[in-house]
Amino acid sequence: MVTSIASVCLSGGLTDKIHACAAAGFDGIEIMDSDLTVAHESPEEIRALCERLGLRIDMLQPFRDAEGVDEDLFADTLRRAREKFRTAQRLGTDLILVCSNAATATVDDDAVTARQLGELADLAAEHGIRLAYEALAWGRFVNDYRHAWRLVQLADRPNLGTCLDSFHILSRGHDPAAIEEIDGEKIFFLQLADAPDLNMDVLSWSRHHRLFPGEGSFDLVTFLTHVLRAGYTGPLSLEVFNDTFRQTDTGRTAAHARRSLTWLADRVATTDSHDDRRIPEAQCPHAVDFVEISGADLSTADHMLEQLGFTFRGSHHRKPVRLWTLGTARLVLDEQDKHETPHLSGIGLSVDDSDRASARAEALGAPPAFRRTHTGDHELRAVASPDGTQVYWNDQPAETWTEEFTGGDDGDSSGAVVDHINLSYPWQDFDEAVLFSTSVLGLDAQASSEVPGPRGLVRSQVMRSPDGVVRVPLNLAPPTAPTPPRHVAISCQDVIGVAERARARGLQFLAVPANYYDDLAARFALDTAFVDRLRRLDLLYDRDDDGEFIHFYTPTLGDVFLELVERRGHYDGYGAPNAPVRLAAQRPAS
Amino acid sequence: MVTSIASVCLSGGLTDKIHACAAAGFDGIEIMDSDLTVAHESPEEIRALCERLGLRIDMLQPFRDAEGVDEDLFADTLRRAREKFRTAQRLGTDLILVCSNAATATVDDDAVTARQLGELADLAAEHGIRLAYEALAWGRFVNDYRHAWRLVQLADRPNLGTCLDSFHILSRGHDPAAIEEIDGEKIFFLQLADAPDLNMDVLSWSRHHRLFPGEGSFDLVTFLTHVLRAGYTGPLSLEVFNDTFRQTDTGRTAAHARRSLTWLADRVATTDSHDDRRIPEAQCPHAVDFVEISGADLSTADHMLEQLGFTFRGSHHRKPVRLWTLGTARLVLDEQDKHETPHLSGIGLSVDDSDRASARAEALGAPPAFRRTHTGDHELRAVASPDGTQVYWNDQPAETWTEEFTGGDDGDSSGAVVDHINLSYPWQDFDEAVLFSTSVLGLDAQASSEVPGPRGLVRSQVMRSPDGVVRVPLNLAPPTAPTPPRHVAISCQDVIGVAERARARGLQFLAVPANYYDDLAARFALDTAFVDRLRRLDLLYDRDDDGEFIHFYTPTLGDVFLELVERRGHYDGYGAPNAPVRLAAQRPAS
Repeated sequence: MVTSIASVCLSGGLTDKIHACAAAGFDGIEIMDSDLTVAHESPEEIRALCERLGLRIDMLQPFRDAEGVDEDLFADTLRRAREKFRTAQRLGTDLILVCSNAATATVDDDAVTARQLGELADLAAEHGIRLAYEALAWGRFVNDYRHAWRLVQLADRPNLGTCLDSFHILSRGHDPAAIEEIDGEKIFFLQLADAPDLNMDVLSWSRHHRLFPGEGSFDLVTFLTHVLRAGYTGPLSLEVFNDTFRQTDTGRTAAHARRSLTWLADRVATTDSHDDRRIPEAQCPHAVDFVEISGADLSTADHMLEQLGFTFRGSHHRKPVRLWTLGTARLVLDEQDKHETPHLSGIGLSVDDSDRASARAEALGAPPAFRRTHTGDHELRAVASPDGTQVYWNDQPAETWTEEFTGGDDGDSSGAVVDHINLSYPWQDFDEAVLFSTSVLGLDAQASSEVPGPRGLVRSQVMRSPDGVVRVPLNLAPPTAPTPPRHVAISCQDVIGVAERARARGLQFLAVPANYYDDLAARFALDTAFVDRLRRLDLLYDRDDDGEFIHFYTPTLGDVFLELVERRGHYDGYGAPNAPVRLAAQRPAS
Repeated sequence: MVTSIASVCLSGGLTDKIHACAAAGFDGIEIMDSDLTVAHESPEEIRALCERLGLRIDMLQPFRDAEGVDEDLFADTLRRAREKFRTAQRLGTDLILVCSNAATATVDDDAVTARQLGELADLAAEHGIRLAYEALAWGRFVNDYRHAWRLVQLADRPNLGTCLDSFHILSRGHDPAAIEEIDGEKIFFLQLADAPDLNMDVLSWSRHHRLFPGEGSFDLVTFLTHVLRAGYTGPLSLEVFNDTFRQTDTGRTAAHARRSLTWLADRVATTDSHDDRRIPEAQCPHAVDFVEISGADLSTADHMLEQLGFTFRGSHHRKPVRLWTLGTARLVLDEQDKHETPHLSGIGLSVDDSDRASARAEALGAPPAFRRTHTGDHELRAVASPDGTQVYWNDQPAETWTEEFTGGDDGDSSGAVVDHINLSYPWQDFDEAVLFSTSVLGLDAQASSEVPGPRGLVRSQVMRSPDGVVRVPLNLAPPTAPTPPRHVAISCQDVIGVAERARARGLQFLAVPANYYDDLAARFALDTAFVDRLRRLDLLYDRDDDGEFIHFYTPTLGDVFLELVERRGHYDGYGAPNAPVRLAAQRPAS
């Protein structure tokens, strides 16, 4: 697989973008004309920089509003084009994207348009340049890739081909199957973009909401399959712009972009196990092995876990690390870092093959996490997720590592498990987090929802394993709001009992307003004594057609807190109606 | 005019919201049920707080999914309602909003729905409660205000009326004229919201894109006129939620919201000069009187102005303030503040009647700006704009204040004028800035555009006086990008001469890449010698059907820079195609 990316996908100046693309492992780059225009480096310097970094300049783009015009204006097209052909020569690329006329076209006559494209191609040929003609979704007369291909055939020049862009084709609902009717050698370039399913005008949709493959709703696997079947062998390139990632760190976006192509190529290649695009298959996690909380001083966490009825299983024999469990929910308290406030620092996942999980993560560009392992300790493979949380894989029984902890008591068999792990992201990193969760962790994206918080709507996106055992809700904070703390939810069989015992041991839960219980009584016809019991213990309640949900939150320690939950019946949610209570209670004092 | 606002319009906790509403001068508040639910204060405390602050609780809202259901579910409606009627009693309000069923309705039969609304009203009557029934735009069976009104008539209960919400009516394109057919006394409540003209599903549009009156595309003047003609005498209330202002300071949003109602009421009342909603008419500015730059040390600015050919007109006779002019462009350098970096701090506008301008600003809640005026000095009335820039009005010749400056030279008669003043806002303050410019400054909003910057798209919105003389482009920075510096553009008759002389005096302009001139030559068929001259002087160029534009930028001093421009022919733009060059050049080093 040969990869490329349009410079417009990234933030910063052109040389920043080039360095980031090379570092992320792209083979080539499309230089956006407007990026070059505002750069102080000459085309020759850009070319030399790309050569030094081993990055091919695949294309200069776009050349706009060329065809379908009267002869006076076409003369100006040729004059403008000549200048850009020289620029392409100076850049050392032989390909220019010509997108269909969206602004100045007045002649809706294929014979005229094809003749003009032919003359433009002839002029290009004099400069050793090839042209890739693309139908913009909002082109005036040409806005369907099949139409663009007909015009290319009509013009019939060896240096004139077509460029396919998944957004322009799929946003219009055009059937990509006819791509297979195009001569693969005449597909001069391929641009890939995903997008969410939005009902809005296609130009705004394109400008503000394109996504990297795997983050949106387009069926890019089918799309790319058609392109490959047509015989296309050129680069898979990304052309994606939206309101968020141009505000993200350039290098990070480039790495994220590169991952999306690997994921897509792998998905397309799964039918052919010998395909060089194959990477190790996803290892869907079948349980949460452990959750790690790190911080300089976690004695408050020790105390809280004891109050919650967790069992102290001992300290690590070499490191300032302690293990607490409730049923099979294992919490690791790690005091190796002497500077940080308590935070959720790691997630262990049980998989069938941790080597393969790790190899896949590496193939997808996830940075390996550094972990100090002493001789004799069980080694877990780990990578850093986009928010810095480390993800470990374990294909052995938990005992292989829990036995490194000594001096504690035996665990209980209460049946408690990690119910879900709630991560939170700033808005501009959210799509990256979703793609990481699907491609690296093997989780599926559920429908997203929105929860009102005191600083605006919080978007929630649940990621979960196919069997529903591993659940990771991602929260997206509004742009100007602080990222909310993360939390771990432990599911147990008698949360009211756990709460009563914890309260008796002196733990104060997150305080719930009395008004909440009045509203609860109004929403559900609940027994008064039951509501009083919930009220006394600051317990939250939800119910739907499948069952009931009772839960409570601990106070926040640094940037992390715990939730204890009980699922009754087949309740499958997360108490979303109660989230505003939590968000309001956790709001920093104003 | 009696005013109100829904608590959901503001960020923060319920008591924060109440304090902000009272401080902004609202007469009442609608308590959103979900805001009460997450508050620790009891309904009695909320009631007592509102009483102390002189804020009426106009309504508790909303009660959802009441009607159009089978009898079992309707029994639950009555049970739920009884609890909420008690809550309303505890709050001391007698009005509850019932919005049309969007989730659970299964019975599409007006007779059944009207009977259920009647029974609900009878139960409400037992508690001394009135119900305002509103058609949601996305109600299952009832989504047209005319339908809601028919149902209210059918139910025929004294304590059952309707609530009108401009968003629900105008978003569906329903003709508001039929509002006049409703008995004014049966319009129990009125909610107002504006919105931009978007092509998207109405629920998302409502949830994310509502705006305060005057900020969007809805014709609220006509809408409100119909409601008043129907005989409605209750509060004008705001129900607005979107993604931006819930992230803004609560008190500021409340003041901004209150201003929008004053503006709207004034617009509606202009046909009746005795109407108590009238405020002094807008004083459209007919010139920029001066621009003020403040900072602890402005000697660099002095030097730069001299290089640009400005005339030093003298120092103020009492204050560390200096005046420089070029033609009638007057720049005041103010060193009274000993701590700040240089920034654009004030704008003086020439108007017909500064007292009226000031009185209008006060009526619209703009905070008066403090200004130290000594006896004998000409007093200018001023207010603070949303970004802190002070706006002064002057209805006297400039000489009345310029004569306070002595020790300088006579001005020139070059014909130079302030061409435009470019302000920049963080995204969450943008709509407020637009409304301030229209309502307080008497400027009109032109079409907005988007300019690509290195950190994402920058939205630009030009505000200008009806005659086009006073022009204030507002720039909206992307959420995570720093707010770009502001600038003043001076228009002159020979910008190339100004540039040559300034360069000869040693001024380096913002450096423009050579690639820009290559692109310029490609875009326009320009004389090579002319392009070379532009290149040598770092001059930017634009052309359209109306004329040409030549301009350059000075280096940035603190948070402000200058632009010198020359308009040839009838060019009426701002060199937007060149903005990316400036944004890239001004980008902080990464």
